Amino acid sequence: MTTKIEELKYVKNIMREIATYVLKTSEIVSEEQIKRALELLVNAYRNNKTVLVMGAGRSGLVGRAFGMRLMHLGFRTYVLGDTIVPPIRKEDLVIAISGSGRTKLIITAAEAAKSVGAKILAITSFPDSPLALLSDVVVIIPGRTKISAEEDYFARQILGIHEPLAPLGTLFEDTTMIFLDSLIVELMSILGVSEKDMSNRHANIEL
Amino acid sequence: MTTKIEELKYVKNIMREIATYVLKTSEIVSEEQIKRALELLVNAYRNNKTVLVMGAGRSGLVGRAFGMRLMHLGFRTYVLGDTIVPPIRKEDLVIAISGSGRTKLIITAAEAAKSVGAKILAITSFPDSPLALLSDVVVIIPGRTKISAEEDYFARQILGIHEPLAPLGTLFEDTTMIFLDSLIVELMSILGVSEKDMSNRHANIEL
Amino acid sequence: MTTKIEELKYVKNIMREIATYVLKTSEIVSEEQIKRALELLVNAYRNNKTVLVMGAGRSGLVGRAFGMRLMHLGFRTYVLGDTIVPPIRKEDLVIAISGSGRTKLIITAAEAAKSVGAKILAITSFPDSPLALLSDVVVIIPGRTKISAEEDYFARQILGIHEPLAPLGTLFEDTTMIFLDSLIVELMSILGVSEKDMSNRHANIEL
Amino acid sequence: MTTKIEELKYVKNIMREIATYVLKTSEIVSEEQIKRALELLVNAYRNNKTVLVMGAGRSGLVGRAFGMRLMHLGFRTYVLGDTIVPPIRKEDLVIAISGSGRTKLIITAAEAAKSVGAKILAITSFPDSPLALLSDVVVIIPGRTKISAEEDYFARQILGIHEPLAPLGTLFEDTTMIFLDSLIVELMSILGVSEKDMSNRHANIEL
Repeated sequence: MTTKIEELKYVKNIMREIATYVLKTSEIVSEEQIKRALELLVNAYRNNKTVLVMGAGRSGLVGRAFGMRLMHLGFRTYVLGDTIVPPIRKEDLVIAISGSGRTKLIITAAEAAKSVGAKILAITSFPDSPLALLSDVVVIIPGRTKISAEEDYFARQILGIHEPLAPLGTLFEDTTMIFLDSLIVELMSILGVSEKDMSNRHANIEL
Repeated sequence: MTTKIEELKYVKNIMREIATYVLKTSEIVSEEQIKRALELLVNAYRNNKTVLVMGAGRSGLVGRAFGMRLMHLGFRTYVLGDTIVPPIRKEDLVIAISGSGRTKLIITAAEAAKSVGAKILAITSFPDSPLALLSDVVVIIPGRTKISAEEDYFARQILGIHEPLAPLGTLFEDTTMIFLDSLIVELMSILGVSEKDMSNRHANIEL
Repeated sequence: MTTKIEELKYVKNIMREIATYVLKTSEIVSEEQIKRALELLVNAYRNNKTVLVMGAGRSGLVGRAFGMRLMHLGFRTYVLGDTIVPPIRKEDLVIAISGSGRTKLIITAAEAAKSVGAKILAITSFPDSPLALLSDVVVIIPGRTKISAEEDYFARQILGIHEPLAPLGTLFEDTTMIFLDSLIVELMSILGVSEKDMSNRHANIEL
Repeated sequence: MTTKIEELKYVKNIMREIATYVLKTSEIVSEEQIKRALELLVNAYRNNKTVLVMGAGRSGLVGRAFGMRLMHLGFRTYVLGDTIVPPIRKEDLVIAISGSGRTKLIITAAEAAKSVGAKILAITSFPDSPLALLSDVVVIIPGRTKISAEEDYFARQILGIHEPLAPLGTLFEDTTMIFLDSLIVELMSILGVSEKDMSNRHANIEL
């Protein structure tokens, strides 16, 4: 059986939808929260503390992509789920990513980190979630439910359909990916790390 | 030692830079290439073929995020690097993601897939790269070097700095993430899969 | 600085120690427990249920090695920590490996599986551990503490040292690896799967 | 459908078969090869070089289990396939595990490591394999084919069956796991690392 695709209905619209969402988020994300997040990161770097990044599912993959860049910057960084993860100690930094702030394994892991005196930085859509409440610093990245009215408008008016478009956590995940990549540039500047330095720390054998 | 961050220089600008890059890409990505990519995917789905997604480093993480969504759509999908990966057979689909199109382990793996008669879909910035040349269908997602003039302009004029901004493969990776998430919505429509169907196929125990 | 190694003190002795430990365990592991474990596995296979294998650290790696073989046998199997993990439903089988039976993330995950009606098979050293108590079937594989007297004797008399030899969970992990590989052969016989069938289901592109 | 298991035919026999195979291997593995392998490891440790462990499939899992223990000993160690892998440099150590010595992705990766001047330690059954030939030091761990006559004898005479018992690479993988765990004890002695030191370096948050 062979299918022919005659016409694209969504691809380019959704690319625009997600990019527009990121633009909106860049306007509303809290500068104060970002500064506090950067302070945790810079202090971990300068005091040579371990930074452990974690998240479940696609949020975990976004966290891993951030962890790689932290390594390129010279951080002593690890990601939950890798084989090689050292113990977390007092004053180490744990970065937990969860749109809902309610992912059980992440909360269990964050509580374990907190119990040994690590700092917790949460990236979540919900300031009142269990994850946010146990964290030292929270950066709120909106998920779909947070701007549902506008989105529904977008969906109904522009594309003529009633279902929300980017499914499930997509908007949170993609926006968080780009937000964290933007933090990396700020950290390059603060820590005086050039792109060439990062390239030199890039894996030369990897999958 | 404690550092205070007084002022953000880049975070919001870089979020805008990346989002703007995605918007530009949505205009220039080839509809014809996208249609051919969708045909490979839809045929794999309808003929119950295995889809193996692969990439190295951050491109691999973007591929894994896409693989998860393919699973939510009901594809028989796997990602290279997972413990559980079945053999690839004739007419299965391998999706290889590499900005440069030159990543050795990915080319080795794609050649192995080709030798058993699998179809190869490449996502890369370079149509003349070894990966593109061995693939059945190629979707070109531009990387930084492809629009360097504009970007340099952007960097110099708007932000007043000389270094390129989003480092290394960031623009390719983030744009590919959003492009692939947009393909998912097109596939939802073509295959008649609702968000609720996807939610029902979402892992309930995961890290 | 270059170091020369003049003499081996432990390698061959420890290989013998671990192998001897496996031999002892083959005598004392409960046939009744093994039969009940096999029943859970065979029923999952015959009813096409998902089998999710999980463990933390080295126990998780042993579980992954078992998961691969289950896939070769034709099971619908996944391992926690892989990118691709489907939802767990009523009557699916979760295999949890933990020497202590107290690993927090594993207990959290096992409880989540139990709450949706999955069957839980635990491989642990401790029949009274939280993991064992919440499981449907438990196979006890002894860990070091369980036969410490003999081991201490072995260490003191044969090798002339006072510390236990194979460190931490090594004896549990290696014995469990071999025990699970032995279950695979029993399953080959019960399910009528030949080595050639398994070879045909072996990944041809993998890392 | 419910299956009852009335009788175990293989489990305990196979446990004994594998343990006996490990015992035999402990007699025939080359002391000279082990000493040279230990020298590479000890020099990496004392000169603070990166040790990258790699293997495909179940050999890769055995490698990861070894990598974890190297971390517990205080090595600067990583495993191929983890998210966090630093670049490999001149004089770093790559440990490649492949029963056949012919696994394509592993040879590609080992060649890449060699090209930057890293040392390669191979664990394989075949001294003439491509992997062995490009390595600085090789430890031969026999796989099934190497002692097939004896094994066939064992299978036929003792257990009354004609098929080889532990399927595919099982004997190589399990024996290598135990061999590498035995190397760990030798390294504890050489480097003066106690079990308590190792326990202090054990992950306290892990999956």
